[in-house]
Amino acid sequence: MSKELGSRAEDFSKWYNELVVKADLAEHSAVRGCMVIKPHGYAIWEKMQQALDTMFKETGHVNAYFPLFIPKSFFSKEASHVDGFAKECAVVTHYRLKNSDKGIVVDPDARLEEELIVRPTSETIIWNTYRGWIQSYRDLPILVNQWANVVRWEMRTRLFLRTAEFLWQEGHTAHASAEEAIAETKQMLEVYADFAENWLAIPVIKGVKTPNERFAGALDTYCIEAMLQDGKALQAGTSHFLGQNFAKAFDVKFANKEGQLDYVWATSWGVSTRLMGALIMSHSDDNGLVLPPKLAPVQVVIIPIYKGEEGLNKISEVAKPLLKKLKERGISVKYDDRDTQRPGWKFAEYELKGVPVRIAMGERDLQNGTVELARRDTLSKETVPLEGIEDRISNLLTAIQQHLYNQALKRREAFTHKVDNYEEFKVALNKGGFVYAHWDGTNETEQKIKEETKATIRCIPLNNPQEAGKCVYSGKNSVQRVLFALAY
Amino acid sequence: MSKELGSRAEDFSKWYNELVVKADLAEHSAVRGCMVIKPHGYAIWEKMQQALDTMFKETGHVNAYFPLFIPKSFFSKEASHVDGFAKECAVVTHYRLKNSDKGIVVDPDARLEEELIVRPTSETIIWNTYRGWIQSYRDLPILVNQWANVVRWEMRTRLFLRTAEFLWQEGHTAHASAEEAIAETKQMLEVYADFAENWLAIPVIKGVKTPNERFAGALDTYCIEAMLQDGKALQAGTSHFLGQNFAKAFDVKFANKEGQLDYVWATSWGVSTRLMGALIMSHSDDNGLVLPPKLAPVQVVIIPIYKGEEGLNKISEVAKPLLKKLKERGISVKYDDRDTQRPGWKFAEYELKGVPVRIAMGERDLQNGTVELARRDTLSKETVPLEGIEDRISNLLTAIQQHLYNQALKRREAFTHKVDNYEEFKVALNKGGFVYAHWDGTNETEQKIKEETKATIRCIPLNNPQEAGKCVYSGKNSVQRVLFALAY
Repeated sequence: MSKELGSRAEDFSKWYNELVVKADLAEHSAVRGCMVIKPHGYAIWEKMQQALDTMFKETGHVNAYFPLFIPKSFFSKEASHVDGFAKECAVVTHYRLKNSDKGIVVDPDARLEEELIVRPTSETIIWNTYRGWIQSYRDLPILVNQWANVVRWEMRTRLFLRTAEFLWQEGHTAHASAEEAIAETKQMLEVYADFAENWLAIPVIKGVKTPNERFAGALDTYCIEAMLQDGKALQAGTSHFLGQNFAKAFDVKFANKEGQLDYVWATSWGVSTRLMGALIMSHSDDNGLVLPPKLAPVQVVIIPIYKGEEGLNKISEVAKPLLKKLKERGISVKYDDRDTQRPGWKFAEYELKGVPVRIAMGERDLQNGTVELARRDTLSKETVPLEGIEDRISNLLTAIQQHLYNQALKRREAFTHKVDNYEEFKVALNKGGFVYAHWDGTNETEQKIKEETKATIRCIPLNNPQEAGKCVYSGKNSVQRVLFALAY
Repeated sequence: MSKELGSRAEDFSKWYNELVVKADLAEHSAVRGCMVIKPHGYAIWEKMQQALDTMFKETGHVNAYFPLFIPKSFFSKEASHVDGFAKECAVVTHYRLKNSDKGIVVDPDARLEEELIVRPTSETIIWNTYRGWIQSYRDLPILVNQWANVVRWEMRTRLFLRTAEFLWQEGHTAHASAEEAIAETKQMLEVYADFAENWLAIPVIKGVKTPNERFAGALDTYCIEAMLQDGKALQAGTSHFLGQNFAKAFDVKFANKEGQLDYVWATSWGVSTRLMGALIMSHSDDNGLVLPPKLAPVQVVIIPIYKGEEGLNKISEVAKPLLKKLKERGISVKYDDRDTQRPGWKFAEYELKGVPVRIAMGERDLQNGTVELARRDTLSKETVPLEGIEDRISNLLTAIQQHLYNQALKRREAFTHKVDNYEEFKVALNKGGFVYAHWDGTNETEQKIKEETKATIRCIPLNNPQEAGKCVYSGKNSVQRVLFALAY
């Protein structure tokens, strides 16, 4: 298979699909809608997990694990939750196969009394469990996170962005007061924003969803919204204030300090392998993947350019001590001295895979005490002294991380429009990007705009400037602009 | 609920079940056979994962992720595999629910054309995927591991030891030759043995299974067998040489160096949350959990014994710098200065939870420049100088790890019997433990012994001494003793 990609300008969607497969990140499986995450893709996801898990633990959370299956009846218990979730999901009805003359068949005698749903999210099974964990305010807060797979039966799927099965983390916390739960919801939003900006190198808008876009069962859904290279928005993480809805549905009460029984307050929050899609669509180019150094499984690759075994040995004498020095600094580095592939092939391969820094070492370079240093983000190269190169590389990795963020921020600023009427609104949407516009605050207007333009209200930004105006659609009074966009 | 446990001597099984729940390790969920792994239990599992994952990566493996669901037809492709696995498993037949006047029901219009099986193990879906990854010897070896949940519909379940859903890792490697695949199988057995002995502090017998006890689809199954406190055996990890069985079933061929097409050679290997059961049953006592320091989420707890706030402040002035010093050494330490619980309650709590080392700091101790140091494994205490306590604690943690291993080894030696006839065999089995006995090598004898005594051949140990003898059951000629035991 050719390693060549189509161009973003020509067909962004095709470019993305090809890149995911050709850079060995993921592929479609034999099971409709389910993906295989290949080692290179999974290594990036592991780095994301590690960074997030550390942040969760630093904010007092612990991990636990709850069942994959949820009894069907649990979904009926929280009225708004069932409408949002219980529809498109994988249903387990039997627990045995048997041999027959037609081959292997489902054993009709092994029908479950109550069907089990493969979790699309775990609020119900977790709150049913919390009932046994919580008696008094002394048992609160419960600050639990789970790393797990979930299944939502999507009809139209896309690698990483929308798959039937995906990997995620879901935090589920229980609190003694609304204030505390809201503070938790907001804290986790900040954690996600911090992670997006400082690890993914993606600037995000923090905000709150309109009632229409809320999580099924939440009183408030906070989110971070990213803008990708094609100007579309992607919801990169959500944090929900669930009020007492799930506590009421599953009868989870606690004795407060005054000895009175009250329902427990809840939050939930999650990010998923969708972030892989955001990462890829934010930074990559027509040559392949571009990775922020903090999430790159290999940060630096050293490629020898030589003739014959003796030539390679000379280079290895210099390369191997450098390898060791870089590793001692905590830099992930690979020396590719395979003789089965030519340097040009290796250059293209590591470009495609997104390795942030490439060092090429030729025999002539070494005579001059120099090497060629190339950065993946700008594709620029320079010949630099070997002496002191460790410092230079450390600094370069930091600079690349920062440059990717700055570039994404600049792009977002260029693609952000303020509009004052529906014509301008539609023109701006066509250009692509974020559109700030006045909205009358009604569900009806939001739905109409969505029907007519496919644009959705991504969020009402936090600390949004209050400013009197007229709704671009209805002309009614509005107190603030909200963030519209076409979204993944 | 009382924190008191029953005694091991009285009812080992009851003691285990109570300990798992009371030490907050796991509990039964609302879904039959599925467990909730609570934060304390999950923290131990995370430490196991971390240690194993590092060992896998050091031996050249990478992680990936394959679908949760497997098309039913895949199970028919490898003949012996289907008999072993495809029977008791969760079957997804539908992908949608809908509202009806009876509440939420499965939508009969959303029936899957082909049923999906929730993976009981992933050989089939992975080898179906490998077909696309492997063309030539240059693509080999593939050294992939997956951390995942799997489901096997068990009728009689037990927390950690046997649950319908459990967590595990499954390595699936592909090789160009039988020799290489066998070397991989044996290497991973060594990794598991190393982990069991040096992390779990459980001595294990390495061996190979009889044909009857082999993994469905394997040519050889290697295993490590542990002995628990009740004298029963537990298979703590398996590594399978799969030959070309799965390559043939899924048509995975490669061009070798000579340009000829051949089927690829395979291995698979796994350990699961079962190891939690092994850990608990190996070291714990009637007071609660006993953890080897290397797997303890909290290794040292410091408990202040004081009167009034001023008293606490005085102790904190000493405790907090010690906390910092221990953390700098990479020791996981907790200072429990909560004023909501008395010291006696805290002592019992940390004993139950298995914290290896407890430091009690009283006001009088501090005047004398001493603290009380207690170790969980022996329940012994001593008053020691505060000066230089960091070194003492470091050494103590090492000593506890070693002591737990030594104790388990001594127990195994005491409970290992060599017998020469069927009467002795049955007497030895009744005493509990490992029984080395001659066996004629036939399936029939193995089955008969199992029917009559419930004992199984745990393994034929590696490097087993060859020694002529007579089968304890049939009296036929035998060339070696094999390891029998009652097992979990």
